[in-house]
Amino acid sequence: MGKEIPSRSEDYSAWYIELVKKADLAENSDVRGCMVIKPYGYSIWEKMQQALDKMFKDTGHVNAYFPLFIPKSYLAKEASHVDGFAKECAIITHYRLKNDPNGKGVIVDPEAKLEEELIVRPTSETIIWNSYKKWIQSYRDLPILINQWANVVRWEMRTRLFLRTAEFLWQEGHTAHATAEEAVQETLQMLDVYADFAEQFMALPVVKGRKTEGEKFPGAIDTYCIEGLMQDGKALQAGTSHFLGQNFAKAFDVQFAGKDGKLDYVWGTSWGVSTRLMGALIMAHSDDDGLVLPPKLAPIQVVIVPIFKSDEELQAIKEKVKEIMAELRKHNITVKFDDRDTAKPGFKFAEWELKGVPVRLAIGPRDIANGTVEVARRDTKEKQVMQMDTVAVNVLVLLDDIQKNIYQKALKLRGEMTTRVDSYDEFKKVLDGKGGFVMAHWDGTKETEAAIKEETKATIRCIPLDSKEENGSCVYSGKPSSRRVLFARAY
Amino acid sequence: MGKEIPSRSEDYSAWYIELVKKADLAENSDVRGCMVIKPYGYSIWEKMQQALDKMFKDTGHVNAYFPLFIPKSYLAKEASHVDGFAKECAIITHYRLKNDPNGKGVIVDPEAKLEEELIVRPTSETIIWNSYKKWIQSYRDLPILINQWANVVRWEMRTRLFLRTAEFLWQEGHTAHATAEEAVQETLQMLDVYADFAEQFMALPVVKGRKTEGEKFPGAIDTYCIEGLMQDGKALQAGTSHFLGQNFAKAFDVQFAGKDGKLDYVWGTSWGVSTRLMGALIMAHSDDDGLVLPPKLAPIQVVIVPIFKSDEELQAIKEKVKEIMAELRKHNITVKFDDRDTAKPGFKFAEWELKGVPVRLAIGPRDIANGTVEVARRDTKEKQVMQMDTVAVNVLVLLDDIQKNIYQKALKLRGEMTTRVDSYDEFKKVLDGKGGFVMAHWDGTKETEAAIKEETKATIRCIPLDSKEENGSCVYSGKPSSRRVLFARAY
Repeated sequence: MGKEIPSRSEDYSAWYIELVKKADLAENSDVRGCMVIKPYGYSIWEKMQQALDKMFKDTGHVNAYFPLFIPKSYLAKEASHVDGFAKECAIITHYRLKNDPNGKGVIVDPEAKLEEELIVRPTSETIIWNSYKKWIQSYRDLPILINQWANVVRWEMRTRLFLRTAEFLWQEGHTAHATAEEAVQETLQMLDVYADFAEQFMALPVVKGRKTEGEKFPGAIDTYCIEGLMQDGKALQAGTSHFLGQNFAKAFDVQFAGKDGKLDYVWGTSWGVSTRLMGALIMAHSDDDGLVLPPKLAPIQVVIVPIFKSDEELQAIKEKVKEIMAELRKHNITVKFDDRDTAKPGFKFAEWELKGVPVRLAIGPRDIANGTVEVARRDTKEKQVMQMDTVAVNVLVLLDDIQKNIYQKALKLRGEMTTRVDSYDEFKKVLDGKGGFVMAHWDGTKETEAAIKEETKATIRCIPLDSKEENGSCVYSGKPSSRRVLFARAY
Repeated sequence: MGKEIPSRSEDYSAWYIELVKKADLAENSDVRGCMVIKPYGYSIWEKMQQALDKMFKDTGHVNAYFPLFIPKSYLAKEASHVDGFAKECAIITHYRLKNDPNGKGVIVDPEAKLEEELIVRPTSETIIWNSYKKWIQSYRDLPILINQWANVVRWEMRTRLFLRTAEFLWQEGHTAHATAEEAVQETLQMLDVYADFAEQFMALPVVKGRKTEGEKFPGAIDTYCIEGLMQDGKALQAGTSHFLGQNFAKAFDVQFAGKDGKLDYVWGTSWGVSTRLMGALIMAHSDDDGLVLPPKLAPIQVVIVPIFKSDEELQAIKEKVKEIMAELRKHNITVKFDDRDTAKPGFKFAEWELKGVPVRLAIGPRDIANGTVEVARRDTKEKQVMQMDTVAVNVLVLLDDIQKNIYQKALKLRGEMTTRVDSYDEFKKVLDGKGGFVMAHWDGTKETEAAIKEETKATIRCIPLDSKEENGSCVYSGKPSSRRVLFARAY
């Protein structure tokens, strides 16, 4: 292995960052807090985009594009919204450079100052609701079901590749409805879409839940989220869906005439997932040898490595590989033949393991003689010998098995790492010990939530939608509680 | 027709803008110079993206993503590059808002001033070559063949939807090579890709050529372009491909060790097309009744309008339509059934004509009885009656015919609107008369180019790659010239 990374047990955080870099997924740029998403990383993001985009369209949404810039006064129209984002805004104040009269390169032209500053969008509710005001007059104009794929900027001081960057890529859905019921339904529908995507494509089991008042989106009535568990026992919020009520409609005066002719404010939702999902994908499944990618999101699903000593051997292998590749492609399997003559098989094995390719085929002269192929799966590292003539269909089955196995492994871990606790001592012991999800009673107050966060760094990740009614007392205050909530330390 | 637009002959410019708005493609936002791309417009852009992305990948390119922000000093590293873009830069100077101490909303926090200003990318050569510096050490790291789909900002004072906006969407390819030959080959290959895309998908014939020194990209050695002709006789540059030589490699000190171990600067290219293509698509083909979309880029290829008086009639039609839609979809044809009960057939016909749907099927009770369908094509407005049971395959043929016909029509227009002139009087007469492309001799000097532009508003669109050697004298100066170049007034 040319590219050593620290082990997870040694230093989980260093393991993550080194893995992201060594597997060629992304790197820090010289621009503070901004990352460069490298081709291999971007190709995984493209797979995520394709799957999500199809799910959005299948649920009736269309894509559109709104301006990158938001006038400062728009951002300020919804009070809690601007409070939430004011501290992390990139602000455009000028629109021209000029030559430095002192001859020192270029400077900002002080005469090209904007009358009103523009904010690089941290999220697009305000600029979009400003358009919706023009688009919506009557109930016949509703619902509006729009999604946007875009970049957004939230100025962050402490950044980490994919997990927290000043600029990130995401999609943001913004919908408008005639009734509260319909908007709530949309909010929950998109939460389900996100959960399905996480579980079926990312192989990441998630808890669906509602955020507390203190953790909800600035400007929302209710925020719903999906929470995943990483291998180090920390939680990661993988997507959010917000019921906005009439907040933005009121801020931008968006009213519609109902069937009865009466005017009312429009009901809204917004929902988003971002390149943060890349971080979740990596941290949920990968191991000390590198990435473990679920086949459905792997840019290369199968790599073929030839084992040869002479050119003749390579030629014989190449002929067979051509047939196998054609067969694999017939089954819509993405395959790469690594016939570089500058690296040895062992090096190649390690490299493709690092890059998380789900299945590796190795073919040597003996395989050619016997009509066999050595098949190795990335998730369990198991190897088996398969018949060459039926390898394609068997690999198809294997890929499906890997997808399921990765999910089951993550689900098992989550089961082991979810603990019900009934006292604050136990609560702290679990957090400092194995970590993970802690299901505990909470008295429902902001004060308790804040005190627990201050003392333990654990936050309420969500009030799980499937959390059952159960009488108990708050682990912190001892006051009565009617259901457990999900606590964890989180990314 | 509910939505009248001015005719082309009346006011071409107003026709264009009204068409873009009435067909729900885009609208101006309240943010100066920025547009909102509406769902119908965006769905055409998505079709363009898909086709181009496939062509880029088929020629060995991969996608990646680089930061939105460029430090001012990076932009300044290549002298002619910064000269070209300095006057149209959106500049970030601060990273935080705060509450106005005087209680008047939010203000820019003067304490959150950046040490170095950041420019919102007008193009990404500088930020990308800064990364390439880290990625390239040896010839083994070359070539790098990267494309990026992104938004860029060039502050424009006079904007026009799709054609010239402060923010626009585009793709920008940035490649790095070991030799000048390979970089030139790449530059020309991508020019061919653009020309193929324009002709095969947009049905827009284009002239491939090289820009003059005065018109080339700031920082390039050579700029190649494709130029299309719009119906009003003006040219539109639809894509550019630049041979950058070693300019950016030198500015960012990107050197590589060759096979012989010697260090040399890397050779570069960049190439891009943008949402401007939407403007070209609209202006090339559309008519006074609305959009005319080539089937390969039409989000809806076939619309079905039922003609009915009673619910029973509608039910009978619906059953047949279900079968027809299934057949059309089997042939990968995108179809919409417009069964709204709030609009009459005539209104629907006009609306789908406005939106440029290539084929319209109308089905009434008599068609049900006779097993027929009325088929109307958008491009020629011709109608014919087809047998219901074979309509899908016939529509497939028809769509192909429409795609070809739109191209041929544009090609014919271009033929009629391309004039060879041999005197300056003729030159001016053609420009002020029918307009279009003017092929004329030019003496090769900046001065003549500038004088002609000043006097006639015509620019040298390009030196066509297929322009033959031909002795002549410059229409302006009378000095000798060895080939004709392409002049036109342009968007």
